[in-house]
Parts: sequence; C-alpha cells; structure tokens
Amino acid sequence: MDGNYSPEEPIAAIATALSPSAIAVVRVSGGGSVERVSRIFSNPKKLNSAAGNTIVHGWIQDLDERKIDEVLVSVFRAPRSFTGEEMAEIGCHGGVSVVKSVFDLLLKIGFRRAERGEFTFRAFLNGKADLTRAEAVREIIDSRTDGARTRAAERLSGGLFDEIDSVKKLIVDTLAEIEVEIEYPEDEETISDSFSPEKIRKAEKILENLASTWKSEKIFQDGAKVVLCGMTNAGKSSLFNALLKEDRAIVSEVEGTTRDFLESWVDFDGIPVRLFDTAGLRDTDDRIEARGVEIAQNLAGGADLVLYLVDSVSGLCEDDIQFINESKLKNDPAPIVLVFTKIDANPRWLSRQSRIETTNIADRQVVLNHRVIDDLPKIGVSSKTGEGIALLSSAVRGLLLGSGDSAENSVSLGSERQKKAVQAALESVSHSLSALNGFSLDAVVQDLEDALENLGEVTGEVTADDVLESIFSRFCVGK
Amino acid sequence: MDGNYSPEEPIAAIATALSPSAIAVVRVSGGGSVERVSRIFSNPKKLNSAAGNTIVHGWIQDLDERKIDEVLVSVFRAPRSFTGEEMAEIGCHGGVSVVKSVFDLLLKIGFRRAERGEFTFRAFLNGKADLTRAEAVREIIDSRTDGARTRAAERLSGGLFDEIDSVKKLIVDTLAEIEVEIEYPEDEETISDSFSPEKIRKAEKILENLASTWKSEKIFQDGAKVVLCGMTNAGKSSLFNALLKEDRAIVSEVEGTTRDFLESWVDFDGIPVRLFDTAGLRDTDDRIEARGVEIAQNLAGGADLVLYLVDSVSGLCEDDIQFINESKLKNDPAPIVLVFTKIDANPRWLSRQSRIETTNIADRQVVLNHRVIDDLPKIGVSSKTGEGIALLSSAVRGLLLGSGDSAENSVSLGSERQKKAVQAALESVSHSLSALNGFSLDAVVQDLEDALENLGEVTGEVTADDVLESIFSRFCVGK
Repeated sequence: MDGNYSPEEPIAAIATALSPSAIAVVRVSGGGSVERVSRIFSNPKKLNSAAGNTIVHGWIQDLDERKIDEVLVSVFRAPRSFTGEEMAEIGCHGGVSVVKSVFDLLLKIGFRRAERGEFTFRAFLNGKADLTRAEAVREIIDSRTDGARTRAAERLSGGLFDEIDSVKKLIVDTLAEIEVEIEYPEDEETISDSFSPEKIRKAEKILENLASTWKSEKIFQDGAKVVLCGMTNAGKSSLFNALLKEDRAIVSEVEGTTRDFLESWVDFDGIPVRLFDTAGLRDTDDRIEARGVEIAQNLAGGADLVLYLVDSVSGLCEDDIQFINESKLKNDPAPIVLVFTKIDANPRWLSRQSRIETTNIADRQVVLNHRVIDDLPKIGVSSKTGEGIALLSSAVRGLLLGSGDSAENSVSLGSERQKKAVQAALESVSHSLSALNGFSLDAVVQDLEDALENLGEVTGEVTADDVLESIFSRFCVGK
Repeated sequence: MDGNYSPEEPIAAIATALSPSAIAVVRVSGGGSVERVSRIFSNPKKLNSAAGNTIVHGWIQDLDERKIDEVLVSVFRAPRSFTGEEMAEIGCHGGVSVVKSVFDLLLKIGFRRAERGEFTFRAFLNGKADLTRAEAVREIIDSRTDGARTRAAERLSGGLFDEIDSVKKLIVDTLAEIEVEIEYPEDEETISDSFSPEKIRKAEKILENLASTWKSEKIFQDGAKVVLCGMTNAGKSSLFNALLKEDRAIVSEVEGTTRDFLESWVDFDGIPVRLFDTAGLRDTDDRIEARGVEIAQNLAGGADLVLYLVDSVSGLCEDDIQFINESKLKNDPAPIVLVFTKIDANPRWLSRQSRIETTNIADRQVVLNHRVIDDLPKIGVSSKTGEGIALLSSAVRGLLLGSGDSAENSVSLGSERQKKAVQAALESVSHSLSALNGFSLDAVVQDLEDALENLGEVTGEVTADDVLESIFSRFCVGK
C-alpha cells in the first residue's frame, strides 16, 4: 500500500475461517477478475455474461479441466461491490483441501494474494467507505460481545461519520459567518456583538462527548481484566464456572490453563472480560497456599477490577482483611468488589435480596475491620442457584465503565487514532472560543480550519500513507 | 429425520467455521424462508421481490430495528437451489458475535436449528442428489489431501452414480433378454445356447473393480498411521520436520504434543498420513531411552507402516537389528521401510541416486544381519537437502495402497455402506452366473433382481430411514 499501489491489480483471499465446515468463500477483486475466474470455471461463457449481483452455478476445474469442486460464484460488477471494483466470491465446500486448492489455482492464473485489509482498503480508496466505516469493519469482526458489536455496527452504518460531519457543518457555517463579518466589518479587528459563537459552542459540546466515549469503547474492544481472589473454599472455582455458564456470548472458551491460574473470556453484561481464577491451587498445603496468595496479589496488581470472594456462611477472616489491605496499598490499586458467596446456604442474605450496597453487615459471624471494607461495594451471589450473578454482571459493567456507560445507541469513537484526531479538533475549537475574547478573527479562523483538518483525518479525507498502512494491517486477510 | 419429517419446515445453520474471519455465511432453507428473513432485513420489499440466484445488499436488524450487521443476502428460488427448496444465504461479517447474533435472530423468527447434514438430506429427498453424491459432499469437506479430494469430487460430479447406473443397465437389459427367453422358450427350464451372459460378466467385472477400490479409498479418507522409529540421533526429528515442511497440503499442524511422542498429519503423495515420532525422548539417559524404545515398539504395533531410520554415516547397529527383529515377531506386524538418513553427508548414497531398492549395501561400515533387513525396502534421504523425500513419499504411498493404487480419475466407492451394497450386488451377480449352469432361469432372474435392489441401495432409491439417519448424522452442521 505504498505510493505505487495499483488498485486494479487482481487480488484473491480466503475470506472464511480455514477449518472444516459446510461452506467456504474465496473472494477476488480487481479489473477483469470475473473473466479471470472464468478460466477455471466449467461454464466460462455464462460466468462472463453474468450481470452484477447474480449467482452462477458450476465447477471450479484446474487448467487440465480436472474437477476441483462444485461451486456457486457470486458476480459483482463495478462500482456495485464491496471494493467498488469488479469482484467475484466463490462459494465452495468448506473442506480445507478444497479451499486451498481453489485458492492456489487463483494464484496460478494471476491473482495476487491479498494483504490484510486490502479489500476494505480498496473500498476506502474507491470512496465506498470513509475511514470510520472502514475501521468499523475490523471492529465488528473482532467484537467479543453483543455490546461491542452493537457499537461497531453503529459506526459501520455511518453513525460516527454523520456525527463528525455535523460538527464540520457547524464549523463551516461559522467560518462563512466570520467571512461576512470580515468583509463587512462593523468594527474592524474585533468581533461584533451581532456575531454569535453558538455553533462553535455546540461543536465543542459534541466533540467533548465524542472524546469521552473512547475510554469505555476501549474496554468494549480490548476487554477488561477481572481477577477472582479469596481464600481457599471461598467459592472461586464455582463462581468462575457459574460465570462461564451464564455467559450468553461466545467468548467463553477457556483459553489457557496453567498450574497457576485459570483464565477465560466472559461476557459481563456486554463487556468482554478476561476473567482470572487461582482455583488451580485449592486443596493444597500451607506452603502452596501462601504461593497462591502471592499469585493472586500479582494478578490483582494488573487488574481493572478485583472480585474478592468471601464465604457468606463462614464470613470474613483475618487473612481476608490482610489481603484487601495489601491490595489497597499498591500503586494504582484495582477497585475491589466484595462478593459474598454461597448465599443459598445463608438465609440472612436471601432475606435481604442481595444488593450491591450492604451497609449493615454487623450481624456477620466474624468481627470485621470496618474501616477496610466499609467503603467497598458488596454483593451476594449463589453459584448454585445463580442468584445475584446477573446483578454481579451489571455491577461489574457499571464499575468498569463508570460515567462512560452511555446508552447503546449513542455514537462512540472506534480507535485511538480517531480519539487523537477528535481531541485535537476539540482543542482547536476550544481555543477558537477563547480567541473570540479579544484576539483577532484571523486567529479564530485559523483555529477552526485546524479543527476541520483534524476532523478530516478522522474520516480519511486527509490521511498519510503510513497511517493507512497501520490501520489496514490490523485487519484479517480477506477483508 | 424420522417418519414425521417435514421437509418444508424452515431451518437455519451457520455454514462457515465459527472463528473470526472476513466473511461468514448463515444459510436457511424451506418454504417461505426468504419472506421470513425479510422480517429482519432492512429492505424487505427488495428481498421478497428478488429473483432466484440474485444478491441483495442491506442490513440485518433485530425486531426493534436495531442494526446487527451489513450483509449480502443470496436468494435461491425452488427448485433451483442446493436443497431444491427456497433458500437464502446471509453473507455477514465473520465476527463470532455477529454470526451468533444473526443466527439467534433467525431462531427467534421461527427457523429451526438444522441438524447435521440436513441441507444435503433435503437435497437428497428432493431429488437434487442421489446418495453417492450426497455422501460425497461430506467426503469432499473432510478430505485431508488433494488426492482424497479429487476422488470425492469425482463422486460429487456423479462418476460413481454413472458407474452404478451402467451396471444397472447391463442387468436390466439382461433381464429383458431373459424375459424373451422365458416367453418364447426354445427349450423350457434350461437356457438356450443363443442367450449370452456377456452383459452379466461385464457387470460382474465392473462391480469387482468397484468393490476393490474401497480398501485404498478408506486410506484416503481415514488416513494411515506411519511411525518413525530408530535410535537416538538417527535423524527422526529432522525427518519429521522435513516431512511437515514438504507437505504442500494443509494437514500439517501438529495436533498433539505429549512428553512421549509427536504426532502430525502429513501428506504423503496424496495420502493423508498420521505421522508419529518419538523425538521427544532424545538427549535423555539410558533408562528413558529404554522407555523410548518401548513406546516406539508400542506405536509401531498399531501402525500401517514403520519407517525405521538409520544414520547412513554410522550405519546399522545391533540395537537396530534387535528392534526390527522384535517388530517382525509381532502379531500382524506393520511393513517396515529402512530409511537411511543424512545421505548428504554420505557420498556413497549420493552417487547411487537414492533408490527404493538397494540390494547391495555390503559396503556399509557395520556388519549387517542380512537375513533380517535384506527383504526390507530401503531408501536414502537427506532432511537437510530434501533429497529422497519425494521418493520416500511416493514409496510410502505405493506401500500403503499396494495394488489398489488406481489412477486418480477412476471412480471409487466412498463409504463402507456403499462397499457392502456393491459387494452384495457382486455376489448376486456372480451367483446368477453360476445359476446359468444348470439352474432354472427363474433363479437367475431372482439373483439379478437382488443385485438391482443392492445397487438401488447404493444410490438411495431403496434405503431405510435408519440408514439415512446414520449417513447424514456424520455431516457437519450447515451442510
């Protein structure tokens, strides 16, 4: 994707996951790509004469006309395609050998193996998608939960583009008003009373809101690290498994099992959470238990949130207080939620309708160090009955997102890159508002033009090659 | 798929592998399935009016019209579809959350989760594919090498169906001739000299050939177990890696690594081979080395072929002879190939152009027990230069397939089920030929009718429900 990039060069990629399945799709794009595919198709004439957005049935066969697979070829004619170029999608059987054979054959007849994100890059080059939509393609594929996907879909449908566009309009309109002001000045050099900076204030407000969305969006994209801590038999393992089971998303496969801890992606009310549990250390002797506490403290150190589990039947003990105290003494300590487990076996919890804030826990069986745990959010759960688990999920979501937990249908930024550009635009706009107090109109104009340039970067109107390179190299192949 | 099966009931399945990728396909089939999909489509009118084999662009949105994903919907109208029913294929982004959301939404609007192979089953029910083609769908997806795929593609294209059909024609023609014979007998009860059993002989020959193809086809489908044996430093690990690297198919991922042995699928000249190596035991002390020999002997016990490696520089030693002797003493011993490694470091091997049969190895540095190894096939390889590896591949193929190594474009049977039915047909046909010698024509007619029934089972004209159940339950979901 350097300066010599040839957008019409025919490219090919396996677009579906390469694993035995019913169907797989190999896609091609570029000038004459349908004619090229027809060279390995059983009915080249039919394929070549196919209209855009139609499907042709036949066989892919090698250059000696040996049959490879029975396929459906979807034909797209420029500019009505994802890339804006002529395209074909070969729907073949999802056997790994089949897919590789079809792909190898495409390389043999002159298609080049597509780079990561190259199809979307061409869509961008051909004006089919601005950068916010292009980036959303990757974001929707990578989304781990429905919550993350919904936000990406909003950007894919142009929500962010429209929001940026509305800010640009406000600025452009203001610039036009200032131009009138400069051409027909009532009072040279300073701003007339008749000129109102309302539009810039509105633009500033929108940009502020947008910029503030990135913190929670980043959690939706990258996930949060949550660690289960607590003494042996506090119910860590049961809660870990209950959370995995409750998980209605698809992120629940246990990704790594070591002798030190378990780790899995879990959906906490739409937030993808990398959940850690030191359950592997249960039922061991004191020496290893000590090591378990050490590991738990280390894990908790890098966490976004710690769920500290206490058996609600036996209650808090000295070791719990000590662990929590130590956690709080760390640099940048993670917030702690006190989770009282096994509430099914504890009628007192049940009668209280497990709540996040349980200010009065004086009736617990163990004398508590109130100063340490009083200010911690508390919640009761039963891994056995599932009670409190949904509440725990939404509490974790609330604590992770904080004030950034915006409504699902609001627009949010999708990348660090966008955040930086929006932040820069916001600063220019804010600066233009201060400039209105005393500086010349020229300074205001300069600020607003800077802001427009920054906003152009968000949508890709003005973007350097290396920025594009770094955006599209994060895509998967075939997209 | 019991007696109450409703073929028009709308079904849905995720048809591509569920792993992050550029594109995924969710497919539906059944009466009114396009109209049903239109309820969650941004442009229902356009979708409903779409002609068969066309593609409609839009958004999948939930019942509250919240956008899920931007998609292409391929529309197929009955009977021009894979199943023969009305179908739609939703091409969405290949994010796991996206795919699951779209699929869940389909279930919500009345689609039933498809059973394994249910789409192909409907294709079979609706006369779009006979059983040999239907089974070939699974076989082509499961094929691990190009060799296996090519054979499955031949069946998918109707090669086996045509072969069976040709045999049926021969039998039906013969039955017609016999009918004439019975109606206008020259000599009642026995067969006239004018009646020639040529067609039945031809049918018998074709069925014999077909039945004989199953042994090698089974190797292509299930793969063969090949074990690398040999002393420490014989070059097992290097050859293992060289074979994985040479592997042009896609079966090379190392599937399991234990402390006892390595295991990987490798393509030996089109034959999928599960290759075992005890390399994990190198550089260990004597006690463990002894255990290594024991493991190697156990692995070799269940193998289809043993590659016994000998360092061509240091030559055979007593331990080698002992291992080979012990292997040969086993019940049903696996054939052994003697592989001389590191021939790049051994000019004598190089000058001989490494061959499969090296009858004269008297110039080796070690005195050999000729009786033990004289009759073993021998081959020289260099894992370093790659010399001899291709030869080793084709030698392994030759030894595994034996006389069943038919040309690639010949038709072969695809399943144990087909083999049994063809075998039964063959026996009936052979029996009819003996019946011609002395028995009544009625007996011949009975045999030939039995044969026709058996052949009908192969293609699915006469097949019990439970047989169908067992065939299609082996498919993946979505096919």
